Amino acid sequence: MLRYSGTYRNKNGRKMLENNADIENLFDELFPLPRSITGDGYRQSVQIISRYIPFEIGRALSGAKVFDWTVPPEWVIEDAYLIDPSGNKILDFKKNNLEVLNYSEPIDKIMELDELNKNLHSIPEQPDWIPYVTSYYKKTWGFCLTDRQRQELKPGKYHAVIKSSFIDGAVEYGFKYLRGNTANEKGGVERKLILISSYLCHPSLANNELSGPIVLAALYQRMAKWKNRRFDYLFVINPETIGSICFLHQHGEEIAKSMQAGLVLTCVGGPNEKLSYKKSRRGDSTLDKLFLQLEQEGEVEIREFDPSEGSDERQYCSSGFNLPVGQVAKTTYGSNPEYHTSADNKEFVELDKFLSTTAKIENVLKIHEYLQPLERVEPYCEIQLGKRGLYPNINSPQTWDASSDSLIDHREQLKAIMYMLSYADGKHDLVDIAKLTKIKMKNLYRYAEILINADVLK
Amino acid sequence: MLRYSGTYRNKNGRKMLENNADIENLFDELFPLPRSITGDGYRQSVQIISRYIPFEIGRALSGAKVFDWTVPPEWVIEDAYLIDPSGNKILDFKKNNLEVLNYSEPIDKIMELDELNKNLHSIPEQPDWIPYVTSYYKKTWGFCLTDRQRQELKPGKYHAVIKSSFIDGAVEYGFKYLRGNTANEKGGVERKLILISSYLCHPSLANNELSGPIVLAALYQRMAKWKNRRFDYLFVINPETIGSICFLHQHGEEIAKSMQAGLVLTCVGGPNEKLSYKKSRRGDSTLDKLFLQLEQEGEVEIREFDPSEGSDERQYCSSGFNLPVGQVAKTTYGSNPEYHTSADNKEFVELDKFLSTTAKIENVLKIHEYLQPLERVEPYCEIQLGKRGLYPNINSPQTWDASSDSLIDHREQLKAIMYMLSYADGKHDLVDIAKLTKIKMKNLYRYAEILINADVLK
Amino acid sequence: MLRYSGTYRNKNGRKMLENNADIENLFDELFPLPRSITGDGYRQSVQIISRYIPFEIGRALSGAKVFDWTVPPEWVIEDAYLIDPSGNKILDFKKNNLEVLNYSEPIDKIMELDELNKNLHSIPEQPDWIPYVTSYYKKTWGFCLTDRQRQELKPGKYHAVIKSSFIDGAVEYGFKYLRGNTANEKGGVERKLILISSYLCHPSLANNELSGPIVLAALYQRMAKWKNRRFDYLFVINPETIGSICFLHQHGEEIAKSMQAGLVLTCVGGPNEKLSYKKSRRGDSTLDKLFLQLEQEGEVEIREFDPSEGSDERQYCSSGFNLPVGQVAKTTYGSNPEYHTSADNKEFVELDKFLSTTAKIENVLKIHEYLQPLERVEPYCEIQLGKRGLYPNINSPQTWDASSDSLIDHREQLKAIMYMLSYADGKHDLVDIAKLTKIKMKNLYRYAEILINADVLK
Repeated sequence: MLRYSGTYRNKNGRKMLENNADIENLFDELFPLPRSITGDGYRQSVQIISRYIPFEIGRALSGAKVFDWTVPPEWVIEDAYLIDPSGNKILDFKKNNLEVLNYSEPIDKIMELDELNKNLHSIPEQPDWIPYVTSYYKKTWGFCLTDRQRQELKPGKYHAVIKSSFIDGAVEYGFKYLRGNTANEKGGVERKLILISSYLCHPSLANNELSGPIVLAALYQRMAKWKNRRFDYLFVINPETIGSICFLHQHGEEIAKSMQAGLVLTCVGGPNEKLSYKKSRRGDSTLDKLFLQLEQEGEVEIREFDPSEGSDERQYCSSGFNLPVGQVAKTTYGSNPEYHTSADNKEFVELDKFLSTTAKIENVLKIHEYLQPLERVEPYCEIQLGKRGLYPNINSPQTWDASSDSLIDHREQLKAIMYMLSYADGKHDLVDIAKLTKIKMKNLYRYAEILINADVLK
Repeated sequence: MLRYSGTYRNKNGRKMLENNADIENLFDELFPLPRSITGDGYRQSVQIISRYIPFEIGRALSGAKVFDWTVPPEWVIEDAYLIDPSGNKILDFKKNNLEVLNYSEPIDKIMELDELNKNLHSIPEQPDWIPYVTSYYKKTWGFCLTDRQRQELKPGKYHAVIKSSFIDGAVEYGFKYLRGNTANEKGGVERKLILISSYLCHPSLANNELSGPIVLAALYQRMAKWKNRRFDYLFVINPETIGSICFLHQHGEEIAKSMQAGLVLTCVGGPNEKLSYKKSRRGDSTLDKLFLQLEQEGEVEIREFDPSEGSDERQYCSSGFNLPVGQVAKTTYGSNPEYHTSADNKEFVELDKFLSTTAKIENVLKIHEYLQPLERVEPYCEIQLGKRGLYPNINSPQTWDASSDSLIDHREQLKAIMYMLSYADGKHDLVDIAKLTKIKMKNLYRYAEILINADVLK
Repeated sequence: MLRYSGTYRNKNGRKMLENNADIENLFDELFPLPRSITGDGYRQSVQIISRYIPFEIGRALSGAKVFDWTVPPEWVIEDAYLIDPSGNKILDFKKNNLEVLNYSEPIDKIMELDELNKNLHSIPEQPDWIPYVTSYYKKTWGFCLTDRQRQELKPGKYHAVIKSSFIDGAVEYGFKYLRGNTANEKGGVERKLILISSYLCHPSLANNELSGPIVLAALYQRMAKWKNRRFDYLFVINPETIGSICFLHQHGEEIAKSMQAGLVLTCVGGPNEKLSYKKSRRGDSTLDKLFLQLEQEGEVEIREFDPSEGSDERQYCSSGFNLPVGQVAKTTYGSNPEYHTSADNKEFVELDKFLSTTAKIENVLKIHEYLQPLERVEPYCEIQLGKRGLYPNINSPQTWDASSDSLIDHREQLKAIMYMLSYADGKHDLVDIAKLTKIKMKNLYRYAEILINADVLK
């Protein structure tokens, strides 16, 4: 078992995340690991994901003060079970790690059902599901079970055993830069940074949370292949809340300098079809602007920023940092009863859609690459389009474009070109053009590429 | 009779304005005094109100130039009556001071009805009411009477007698600071100023105007008892228009430096139930913002700023000063035919509501004390609520709060706390939080108090 | 024939454009001239209009680089005709200059109908109209004819003759300042500039374009008679697109310094009644603001800025200059099938409305003269209206005002005065007052004049 090993490296030749079988293999490997906000279950999970994203590891030691918080000790859990009056082991952490309250303190005690009941957790409304319960900062112990099982418990002596301990350790997070590679950047100008972050601390739960890290890994692999990256991208994985607080304590000031926008990935699986974007607290990042436009075009759904629920965007967006970080999800927490129960499982999360979801997010980020202020090389009067062959043949309204594998609408292209050239004043971007022309972003960014290639736009 | 006596002092042990009988006694004492914009009727009235608000007195001498105006001479009125052809005294200033045109020049002349009619004022549409008419700056004389009485006048010789004179004197105003008393202010930082102003120049009229000065006095007494005052408050009384012009001529530049918001009280009696707020010309003061929010919550009504009607806010809001002063009323001028007639009397003004109206205004000012940019002591990441006991017990949704004598909704409180902490960036205030959370101001300010007491908010 | 003659001067005593006969005479003289973007037809036309507006002439020589463009050679056209197989001259430039493609290269060739057809232009949807076709920058030749005539062409040998040549010459434009003449300007402060521009390059077409230059001439004559002009006005005429590009290349930087607003006149004839205003790209000029208000009052129609269609405002509004230039029209290009065909003729353009259209534009510019930030001489408190006689007699609600030959509504006037005085803070203008009071601009500017004359407003 690795501990404080420095950077996890991709040591074997495992295949990329290219098809549904790759996704399922990774999911099956990660699902049973006993993750928490610290400890070996978490570390093993990060190590596995590091095959796809070669993370650097940062850590904050137990007891350290991080802003208003104190880094907790590591939770070591060896075993946990409950034996009923008949001597049957009716709950068993080794079979289902949801059955012990996460961060339970140790116990080894025989007690009556009445006393035991104070430390049992179930959901009367969902009698067949086991709840996921944690108590990171207030010492207690507990077992979780279905309400149906609980109702059948008979009076008598129960033996509760939790073999856990708290040791000095660390909260750990992984981070990896994917640097910009476009040649047309001016020397000496630092690139803007895009943060893409997800979290890892829930044990056997599928939508919240394994969907996030797996899509993060697939997204990294795809973006690593881009020929042009105008931005630097920073991929981050951490235990939720305390992990991003530790990351921000160590790197917040540095990344704030160059960050243009960011995304937290959470709950990106499940039955909902459209991407759902929660705006950053500022609400004015280029990704905020793009997602709002894509909502207008019917592509995504939008949620307002809400500090009382969500994931690590709550830390990134806290007023001291006020980073432009939104959150992208599909089937969001709170929108389904399966959230934080054993019913958030492999079936619920719909693994066969992970790759298309990854492609949707990639596509938004691809369009976002063009979301910088438009600027013309020659700003005075109109450009003579004819001499550059930029007047499309309007008589044949549509032709097939081999490079983008799609139809080009020539009238729309000419309109887009006229508007982009007129508004290329360093103050407008493609979303502004989309609003003025009603042309969709998925077409507009290709027309912008034409003008960039013709050296008319910078 | 006091003249140029310096500060009026509270010389006797009269009871406070604590119940409806106190209000009625004060009203009955003030009502019959022959007030005008200058003179002894005005001065006596200020002296009476000074039992409750220990005013300093400022004055501008007759003939002085105040901006575009000239301070008028004082009007001394000893007697005025009209004797009909039968020798009956049919109009008598000593019985009803509305029966003489305010600021009439002297006359002692016998004339035919035709000639007299040019100087009579009545209201054909309201045949039983006497109009209130003034001519401060254009010399004339006149009598006011009911239209029914006027129609019964028979041809013949009438004797019109007005024993008045114009003497060098002054326009006078009263002002009194109620200073802030909170301990948590930084030394050396001047407190912001809130102006609360009303006027006193109408003789026997009840809603416009005795409601204003009486509620002003009751408000002063209540606010003087506040344990915490974050602002300085300045209470002002003056004859309408010329009085506030004189006050601004002498104090405008000085108060403009620190004024954050202000209120003119006018027509705060009468049948209407809700407070009605006229926005300041700027429309962006913290009181403007608060009243607009309270309108959204159904508590008050809003009127736009209108320079062509209203009270002294027209002077405060004039472009050279552009002070953030709104106006609060209940049954506004122009909304009822009783305005500026003898029907604006003790019955119309509904004295029994003066104290509850005072409480409403006091409550707005109380909430307004919290309307400063929210700022966190520790601005980075979330605050750990658990260790401070700030996680309310959500299982028991409501509990009785003894200190505020009201129910506390714990879910609402937690939501409010999360939003206040997230938006406490020195740019948002409680009204912004109310808009984001839909939680009412009357609850929100109590939650803010919790965070201030926990040293989480500054 | 004049060539490079310097300033055209008004050499004869021709009458002003005062009645419909004047307009018709000018129209008839200009209509048949063979205009293009260069050459003698254009030059003659400018010379004729110079009788009314004494233009200075600027030129850019053929071959010169102007921003992204190159000044083309002059097109010299002597004759052009088509002879059919029977020997009949069926198309003849000398009879209708629309019948040759504008900027045709020379040809003298006998060919079969099949070959000829490639260079014929007609409109199947409008079989009786001849289209107007140009090819300024791509060398080709062609004839234009009705589709009905084209369908009757029989196979056989056709003789196509175009006697044209391209010579070194220039693109020329005319410009003339009409300077401000008000006495109350502060010395040393440069006046703001208003640009009024139209174009001249279409041969026998009436709405697009002779309406523009003729109304420009009539407007100049009327504005030259104004007693008060607060702004400088610059009148410009040029061949469309390349002409304004050359003008901007030589004068753009200079006029940008002082320009407050501008108008391009195009298509100001035809059946539509209301003025139609296309906003400048900035959308924030004082003329933009005024036209938007006049739309609210039902007086004009508004079009958004659209860089993909229109006239020379596309050049003025290009991002490098970003001048506040809008466009005024009546029956706009694109709104009627007659556009760019022989049907855009004397009947379509409705010459008898040219003078009333001129008056409408003049009236907007007259109101616009008052559209500067309002400022009071004495900014503190209210103005004492009574002593200045500014309290209108409200008892007689309307009186006839001889000076403006119209009814004055006294209640409206008082309200306007109160609002203007309150908002005269150097930040509001008459359109703001119109929005606050709902009083129409056509009345408001007269009330402003009253306050200016009373030395209350600056």
